[in-house]
Amino acid sequence: MKLMRVGPKGQERPTLVDAEGTIRDLSGVVPDFAGEGVSLEALDRIRALDPVTLPALPEGARIGACLASVPTFHCIGLNYAKHAAETGGKPPREPILFTKASSSLSGPNDAVILPPGSEKSDWEVELGVVIGKPCWQVSEADALSHIAGYCVVNDLSERAWQMKRGGQWVKGKSAPGYGPCGPWLVTADEVPDPQALGLSLDLNGKTVQDSDTSDMIFSVAEIISYMSHFMLLVPGDLIATGTPSGVGLGMEPKRFLRPGDSLALRVEGLGEQRQEIVAA
Amino acid sequence: MKLMRVGPKGQERPTLVDAEGTIRDLSGVVPDFAGEGVSLEALDRIRALDPVTLPALPEGARIGACLASVPTFHCIGLNYAKHAAETGGKPPREPILFTKASSSLSGPNDAVILPPGSEKSDWEVELGVVIGKPCWQVSEADALSHIAGYCVVNDLSERAWQMKRGGQWVKGKSAPGYGPCGPWLVTADEVPDPQALGLSLDLNGKTVQDSDTSDMIFSVAEIISYMSHFMLLVPGDLIATGTPSGVGLGMEPKRFLRPGDSLALRVEGLGEQRQEIVAA
Repeated sequence: MKLMRVGPKGQERPTLVDAEGTIRDLSGVVPDFAGEGVSLEALDRIRALDPVTLPALPEGARIGACLASVPTFHCIGLNYAKHAAETGGKPPREPILFTKASSSLSGPNDAVILPPGSEKSDWEVELGVVIGKPCWQVSEADALSHIAGYCVVNDLSERAWQMKRGGQWVKGKSAPGYGPCGPWLVTADEVPDPQALGLSLDLNGKTVQDSDTSDMIFSVAEIISYMSHFMLLVPGDLIATGTPSGVGLGMEPKRFLRPGDSLALRVEGLGEQRQEIVAA
Repeated sequence: MKLMRVGPKGQERPTLVDAEGTIRDLSGVVPDFAGEGVSLEALDRIRALDPVTLPALPEGARIGACLASVPTFHCIGLNYAKHAAETGGKPPREPILFTKASSSLSGPNDAVILPPGSEKSDWEVELGVVIGKPCWQVSEADALSHIAGYCVVNDLSERAWQMKRGGQWVKGKSAPGYGPCGPWLVTADEVPDPQALGLSLDLNGKTVQDSDTSDMIFSVAEIISYMSHFMLLVPGDLIATGTPSGVGLGMEPKRFLRPGDSLALRVEGLGEQRQEIVAA
């Protein structure tokens, strides 16, 4: 299933995009997509509905983040070898975990407002994984069975804030609008192999990131198993699994986002995001 | 007001502890304490109720975390000079931000289960600040007016996971039960000066942390203003503002938590936590 949230900011309603591409309103029958609302059981209840019985909505409405909120917005750092190299880092020996503030979640096509004081904002196309079942110290073999679905994430990053302001990365990862997520939450049954998905990002129409999830250093199964040894992952948790090479920080000369730039991001089977960059 | 959540895990109900110490059930009249449920407007609606019209509940029930969930569980690192020194660090020039997974939230008196594989679990008594109004790039002068209230937080930390497993601290801060919070959310009007609160922690009856929030390097107002330049703080966000000296990592020899240990934590005016440490 392709689940999508449409409507003005803060008033989105949960919908299902059916096999014909018609947007079907779920707001009368299920809670919003967040937390237990995307548990495997909740998704099974949606799956049991006959889409033609649901009201069709017109196309063209704003698309919201595919999750209304997240318990924790997790990210994996330096999970593609060429990206680790372009940032001046080495491939990590174990997954690097960090987080974004959950208030950074935003719609896939919302304008990205460069926050006052920012200097070096950068793009990062990523495969997002949404948890559907509590995971605590699960094995790699069992890990994928805990996934609700997948989505495109742009892990927008303010490099000066991330790296020059002391300590932890959350500072540079969390500005409002710096977590576009969607358009769809594609349920796991439609993604037979999360390690076989092309992903790419265009800056002003030119492809600058172009890779495949088979290039990840740590697979989705390894990431979930690894994380679950340190913390309880819960339904609705979002994990952005790292970006491939081609970010602005890795260019020569470095190239950061400017008002007027446009981004287009794709992950195979998960749809496309388009963002205009604007001044505050 | 002193707000408290009581009941079995996952079934807590929101209550008000009235001036006589009677626990008054709010579950029929307000949503749970989380997100918009602790916005300044939501607190004003509770304040307008006459406590004697609310059902009294018996004492002795389990006390849950004073927040049902948090949008983001923020923490400040090394915010007391003597603690920075005992960890081998220097006092930071600007606040160090990190996060705990929101799934680490737990009741103030729940047993702390040492997770399998942990080696060096440590205690950290802290003043917790709960946001009541969206904050984006606010001034220090205006910062305190965005606070819903305060609570005791134990920022339990697995030092080996925090420091020896690569990169960011979230790994060692997020185990289930490693975020005791409460007993009460004390509204901001009852805490005239957040920089004048004694805080202490006893290990097996002996006081090992004993300080005052006047010793913070960065005040609560500075922290909120600073954070809000990087990210939008939203109602229900919890900020643990750093721990004073006296953690196990700073002892000679180092002393980490063992099954059978007990902790008691206090912040002046915000109540007490008591935790037994148990093996998994």
